[in-house]
Amino acid sequence: MSKKYVYFFSKDFTEGKKELKELLGGKGANLAEMTNLGLPIPPGFTISTEVCDLFYKNNWNYPEGLKKEVEEKLKKLEELMGKKLGDDNDPLLVSVRSGAAISMPGMMDTVLNLGLNDRSVEGLAKRSNNRRYAYDSYRRFIQMFGDVVLSVERDKFEDVLNDQKIKKGVKDDVDLDVEDFKQILAKFKEIIKNETGENFAQDPKAQLWKAIDAVFGSWNNERAIKYREINNIKGLLGTAVNIQSMVYGNLGESSGTGVAFTRDAATGENKFYGEYLMNAQGEDVVAGIRTPKYVEELKKQNPVIYEELLSVRDHLEKHYRDMQDIEFTIEDEKLYILQTRNGKRTAFAAVKIALDMVEEGLISKREAVMRVSTDGLDQLLHPNIDPKEKYNVIAKGLPASPGAAVGKIVFSADKAEEMASKGEKVILVRKETSPEDIGGMDAAQGILTATGGMTSHAAVVARGMGKCCVAGCGDLVIKSNNSCEIGGKSFIEGDYITLNGSKGEVSDEKLRLIIPEVSGDFQRFMKFVDEERTMGVRTNADTPQDSAVAKKFGAEGIGLCRTEHMFFEGDRIDAVREMILSENKDGREKALNKILPMQMNDFIGIFEVMDGYPVTIRLLDPPLHEFLPHKDEELRELSKTMGMDFNQLKEKTESLREFNPMLGHRGCRLAITFPEIAVMQTDAIIKAALSVKKKGVKVFPEIMIPLTGTEKEFEFLKEIIDNRAEKLFKKENDRVNYKVGTMIEIPRACFVADKIAQKAEFFSFGTNDLTQMTFGFSRDDAGVFLPEYVKKGVLANDPFQKLDTEGVGKLMEIGINKGREIRHDLKIGICGEHGGEPSSIEFCYNVGMNYVSCSPYRIPIARLAAAQAKIKKEEIE
Amino acid sequence: MSKKYVYFFSKDFTEGKKELKELLGGKGANLAEMTNLGLPIPPGFTISTEVCDLFYKNNWNYPEGLKKEVEEKLKKLEELMGKKLGDDNDPLLVSVRSGAAISMPGMMDTVLNLGLNDRSVEGLAKRSNNRRYAYDSYRRFIQMFGDVVLSVERDKFEDVLNDQKIKKGVKDDVDLDVEDFKQILAKFKEIIKNETGENFAQDPKAQLWKAIDAVFGSWNNERAIKYREINNIKGLLGTAVNIQSMVYGNLGESSGTGVAFTRDAATGENKFYGEYLMNAQGEDVVAGIRTPKYVEELKKQNPVIYEELLSVRDHLEKHYRDMQDIEFTIEDEKLYILQTRNGKRTAFAAVKIALDMVEEGLISKREAVMRVSTDGLDQLLHPNIDPKEKYNVIAKGLPASPGAAVGKIVFSADKAEEMASKGEKVILVRKETSPEDIGGMDAAQGILTATGGMTSHAAVVARGMGKCCVAGCGDLVIKSNNSCEIGGKSFIEGDYITLNGSKGEVSDEKLRLIIPEVSGDFQRFMKFVDEERTMGVRTNADTPQDSAVAKKFGAEGIGLCRTEHMFFEGDRIDAVREMILSENKDGREKALNKILPMQMNDFIGIFEVMDGYPVTIRLLDPPLHEFLPHKDEELRELSKTMGMDFNQLKEKTESLREFNPMLGHRGCRLAITFPEIAVMQTDAIIKAALSVKKKGVKVFPEIMIPLTGTEKEFEFLKEIIDNRAEKLFKKENDRVNYKVGTMIEIPRACFVADKIAQKAEFFSFGTNDLTQMTFGFSRDDAGVFLPEYVKKGVLANDPFQKLDTEGVGKLMEIGINKGREIRHDLKIGICGEHGGEPSSIEFCYNVGMNYVSCSPYRIPIARLAAAQAKIKKEEIE
Repeated sequence: MSKKYVYFFSKDFTEGKKELKELLGGKGANLAEMTNLGLPIPPGFTISTEVCDLFYKNNWNYPEGLKKEVEEKLKKLEELMGKKLGDDNDPLLVSVRSGAAISMPGMMDTVLNLGLNDRSVEGLAKRSNNRRYAYDSYRRFIQMFGDVVLSVERDKFEDVLNDQKIKKGVKDDVDLDVEDFKQILAKFKEIIKNETGENFAQDPKAQLWKAIDAVFGSWNNERAIKYREINNIKGLLGTAVNIQSMVYGNLGESSGTGVAFTRDAATGENKFYGEYLMNAQGEDVVAGIRTPKYVEELKKQNPVIYEELLSVRDHLEKHYRDMQDIEFTIEDEKLYILQTRNGKRTAFAAVKIALDMVEEGLISKREAVMRVSTDGLDQLLHPNIDPKEKYNVIAKGLPASPGAAVGKIVFSADKAEEMASKGEKVILVRKETSPEDIGGMDAAQGILTATGGMTSHAAVVARGMGKCCVAGCGDLVIKSNNSCEIGGKSFIEGDYITLNGSKGEVSDEKLRLIIPEVSGDFQRFMKFVDEERTMGVRTNADTPQDSAVAKKFGAEGIGLCRTEHMFFEGDRIDAVREMILSENKDGREKALNKILPMQMNDFIGIFEVMDGYPVTIRLLDPPLHEFLPHKDEELRELSKTMGMDFNQLKEKTESLREFNPMLGHRGCRLAITFPEIAVMQTDAIIKAALSVKKKGVKVFPEIMIPLTGTEKEFEFLKEIIDNRAEKLFKKENDRVNYKVGTMIEIPRACFVADKIAQKAEFFSFGTNDLTQMTFGFSRDDAGVFLPEYVKKGVLANDPFQKLDTEGVGKLMEIGINKGREIRHDLKIGICGEHGGEPSSIEFCYNVGMNYVSCSPYRIPIARLAAAQAKIKKEEIE
Repeated sequence: MSKKYVYFFSKDFTEGKKELKELLGGKGANLAEMTNLGLPIPPGFTISTEVCDLFYKNNWNYPEGLKKEVEEKLKKLEELMGKKLGDDNDPLLVSVRSGAAISMPGMMDTVLNLGLNDRSVEGLAKRSNNRRYAYDSYRRFIQMFGDVVLSVERDKFEDVLNDQKIKKGVKDDVDLDVEDFKQILAKFKEIIKNETGENFAQDPKAQLWKAIDAVFGSWNNERAIKYREINNIKGLLGTAVNIQSMVYGNLGESSGTGVAFTRDAATGENKFYGEYLMNAQGEDVVAGIRTPKYVEELKKQNPVIYEELLSVRDHLEKHYRDMQDIEFTIEDEKLYILQTRNGKRTAFAAVKIALDMVEEGLISKREAVMRVSTDGLDQLLHPNIDPKEKYNVIAKGLPASPGAAVGKIVFSADKAEEMASKGEKVILVRKETSPEDIGGMDAAQGILTATGGMTSHAAVVARGMGKCCVAGCGDLVIKSNNSCEIGGKSFIEGDYITLNGSKGEVSDEKLRLIIPEVSGDFQRFMKFVDEERTMGVRTNADTPQDSAVAKKFGAEGIGLCRTEHMFFEGDRIDAVREMILSENKDGREKALNKILPMQMNDFIGIFEVMDGYPVTIRLLDPPLHEFLPHKDEELRELSKTMGMDFNQLKEKTESLREFNPMLGHRGCRLAITFPEIAVMQTDAIIKAALSVKKKGVKVFPEIMIPLTGTEKEFEFLKEIIDNRAEKLFKKENDRVNYKVGTMIEIPRACFVADKIAQKAEFFSFGTNDLTQMTFGFSRDDAGVFLPEYVKKGVLANDPFQKLDTEGVGKLMEIGINKGREIRHDLKIGICGEHGGEPSSIEFCYNVGMNYVSCSPYRIPIARLAAAQAKIKKEEIE
């Protein structure tokens, strides 16, 4: 027996089922499945995806036996339907549709009404009692066939259609009559002859095979390849081809067509929801030429069909155990189902449906957890532009921080604070932001910047605040301190704009927003999530305020507390600068002594909020010149404050300047040349810990050494830290448990992770820097070429957004394995931006990390991603 | 039977041999070996290195049985010598010396004359007929014992000695008499009592054990640990302890002592060479108080002993098959040999001895190859300061390019060329050099700069020219355009200085140099080297001139031709800038068309010189802003040349500026955003190749894509290159074989090397950038902390000088393995600075590279290192 390639489906004889999705594609498998369920499906057959695979392997040739098998199945279909393909009087018409195992909507080709020709169109006319419809169908068929199968430019046909309408002085297709269509058809055939050198195929068998060729060919068209690349769809054999007998919803008022969702796709409510049109074909419902009716009305119009539909709905939901999106056609009072698939839904609906289905006993809790996407959850956490608003986008930037914001433009942080204090909603518009703008950013509804990437100051801070931000908007030009141009349009302070931070859009309108409620449903859903989740979720937070927000969102500790942010605050920047500009250790220590009590208080605040949870504090990381001003005027002012000669000050700042600060004198390198900084920070941490312990706070400080590349660096600093801590414990006659660990962010560290782990008690992957060094990309500079890289397909994603598992991930695996070789229970986490990105979180789970750490507003997403990663892995195993 | 720890050596009973070096240390094994050979060795015994190992493992306790074994061997020695340790009348005195398997000169402890006390000193006095000598020996013994064994500060004893001399009004130790020594001894004992709380040990057995403890203890003293770290000495058990009966060269005129080399250590001449003193002990020969005689004179003075020495010389050379450095003592007309070891020698001598020994049939050619160090060979290739010159070092900088240079100071490149054209020898002294200085650097004898590291422009160019350079000399301050200060001393144009580029020294004297001849011996030796060598050696060269030099030194192709250096030359920089400043592709192409013929001519020149050898040409690598001026005045001038508005020009240059240019828009990233640059360069290479082929030149261009991090980058550019090449081949109706490969210098590239190798025909490791990214060190900035890292022992070496095999090397291994998985015969080389550094070359050989590439003047060293790496590996296998 030769291999089987074609699978028939009909009431009495069906060869497929939903489990054969890989072989029959989603559409084909579901058609077979529904037929098996006894639902009314127009019969047909599916050519398997294996044929597609062989077609390409054999240089566009079909495997032996296929032709014969298709002919046999077609004959079977003709017998079943009592019609023949190409019959002059009562032709069998079929649709030819693609359908891969994973849905690729609109990417591949479809041909409808196949089987029409100059003679059978008359048969259809008689049969339908509608000449105009028959000729319109024929016109549509040739147009579709010409475009899809023969690759004739679509516009050529449209031009003919338009010319005819102009000639006749009408506006719509519906105003054209049979005679018009006859003229159009003549011209269409002429076009095809001219473009292809051949006459339009009148032989329906030839039409069929050409359509099959075209559908298989469309598997590897440019947009389909691109789509698979972008969506990371791999390992499929190809598309299947579904050949199905056509049914007609437009055979008069007893016919109709519709689409429906088994539950409300917007709210999730458990009620049947859909639209239909009588005397219409599917495309009419979508096209919006006539206004469709709500499916409830069918109850009055045709209660039998309605009841039948309700029973189909029940049947499908119970069977597929998910909300379904179905297409149906009523032909002469008879209901047909043409398609079912899992329905797309809003994030709200996804949560509600998942929760309801658990209650209904339809799905398990862990299934519910898999039913809500992390992207969807993100929507639930931020204000969004009301989907009903149709708005004007005047400029685009990077979607730097999600959500939407409406407000009056302000150009300075001070102004933002001033106006916000009066209850005004403002958007802070700046070329770029800097640490001094924090107050204004906090006061604003959203932030718009002209320069800077996804990891610019504005973007990072806004995400930290859970505030909408559009960054790097090239079409924003600041003109003066109270005017700007956006997308060529002028604005002054006080003008309203709306930002969509999820899409990077700027609108010049004042749009209506929807403020989501983090309702009971959300909380119930997150409870399911946490029941499944095993990996910890911590937060990146530098202040007691951020820590409190994070805890509210479910953070189980702090994974990264950056001490340098504290160095900028208030007066202490003066002491920091004094420290940097000191000529010797004594001078530095004097300045550090001023900082010590302030830094200690920072930690006390954070420890108190994080009572009972670990707090990972990173020692000073950035190069010292970041704390100094760079402009002459600022330096002149500083020279007065410091009582230091201007020229000397300038020389000193110049001498600290670096060619590549990213790879310069920073991280633990600072602490090795100036150990007194590490000493001060250790003192602040340990003193703070001892002090809160006295008040009954449970404190678990974890001191983190940044930028370790060799085991010696770590040992050098751990000794300093341990010595200081012991000294303080002795002095206070009390102790706290603390750990000393390191960031792993230098590629080399991964190779010597075993040696580092001899002394290090935890690792935290700093994937921002690790990505920079592994790729050799400076985040601050890559904006020039990274977007082009993604556009040209050189990179599938921006590696600063999604962790690059092929390079950076491999280094991480080496680091983790080597570290755990030495210390089996080594605690390992991640604290780069990737700690809040779902695909990266999945990677972190799969390589065995103990926790991820992310900004406070990403925490629910991280919790969900961690739970889903665990479930996915278990399902594979 | 318990384990054996002590090995006796004497004429009749010797338990060791030279093969037991690991167990007995070098000294102990050779003493046993020489005893076995029948040479006159004072008997004694060696406590094995295993004891040292156990001593540390057991918390400073000796293994069971050791005490007893030592006592037994001591008793045997006493019987043999007919003297007893501590005997009042004729005491046996012994030396207690350390000796590990690998020589660590001066790092561990030694005690001589052990066995003296208040009574036996009188016995020695009688026996030696020299009371003064006996008391001086006792004084020296206590001093040495106090210092080495009891850890009393050395200065305390010296102070007593000095006080005594002052008191007596004399200058030298020799002017002190027995009475003086008695007073001194009393004070010495007092010091010991005060410092240790115990009396000086009068019991010789206690002295012995304390000395043994001290020698074992010295294995882990700070300087020994440091020495092993620096010299990468690993895997040794510890030191052995040699206890040997003392012999006296100072028992009158029939006694004496000397050191000798079996061949001339300076010239390599095959003649016995040494010095001796009658009536003296070893240290007297070295101390230079009396002038020693040449060993030939012994022929007249004592022909029997001389003949005996000659026969020892023959015996040892034949036996050890290498030039020996021996110590001997004559006691009462009897010759004793106290030590033999392979003798240190000059580079000239090393080559000559190796060649001679091959001719004498003493060693094989491959042994000869191992006998010359790469450092030594380097000396042979550069002028050096005459070793007889004792000179004044006024400042130190980095040893940026080896060799020495003498000349008059000039402060500008123009002046250097002007004076050199008149036959003057000049040293170019600059804050730093830039590409415009090339002419002056070429004209100068050497280069001295105030700033910049080992990879600064000055250093790289000087090494390329084989010219002496001291860079980053912090004590050099340029005062005006014709004066400077060096180490605080003022200099003006025309003053003489001397540079030692091998050591980084600056002298204010006009010193005599030795200009080495690359003589017949050198050529003969290199022939042996090449017979052994299997790995290829190519050169980094950007001009026909450099290529010719490299070929003379034995380069087998070009491994790195940097096209950007060509971009700076002459008028073309204008066209380059025009290209950069163009607003669109048309403008860029217009400018590139101007560069094309010039670049084509560069390649023609290089291809002609390299006839028959491959030439690897790297496409443009640096960020474009490197080609633009940065100062306003230069920009203003450029704006005139370009006919471009100054402000517009400034804005453009500002917009190109990068935060971290190292990680910015450079390498293949440039070619992906501006493919027209790659197109022009491909055209220049292929056209040049076709043109020289017509003249009969054999040409093998290898086009190298820089900074590849993903396979897509490579594929994108390879397609452009292949398309252009095919186009030109068709047009010219001729073709050349060319390859397209890539630099591997981005950490990520190593992880996707298998994917890159699908299309790439060769890899060349760019270990400069790979080191920067793997460590996260910017070469330009690391000068601030790297020296401190090396000083504090955080890093054993500067990883930009010696390849870091633990991190960078691991990445390279991953890259090589993955690349060859896909393409088994993938050609792999290295073109970073490490390609000329011997330990890095050894690594390259061991990981299976096909070639290393280095600057022209390093080529002989690379050839030798490659041959030695191969021999070493074969010896291990």
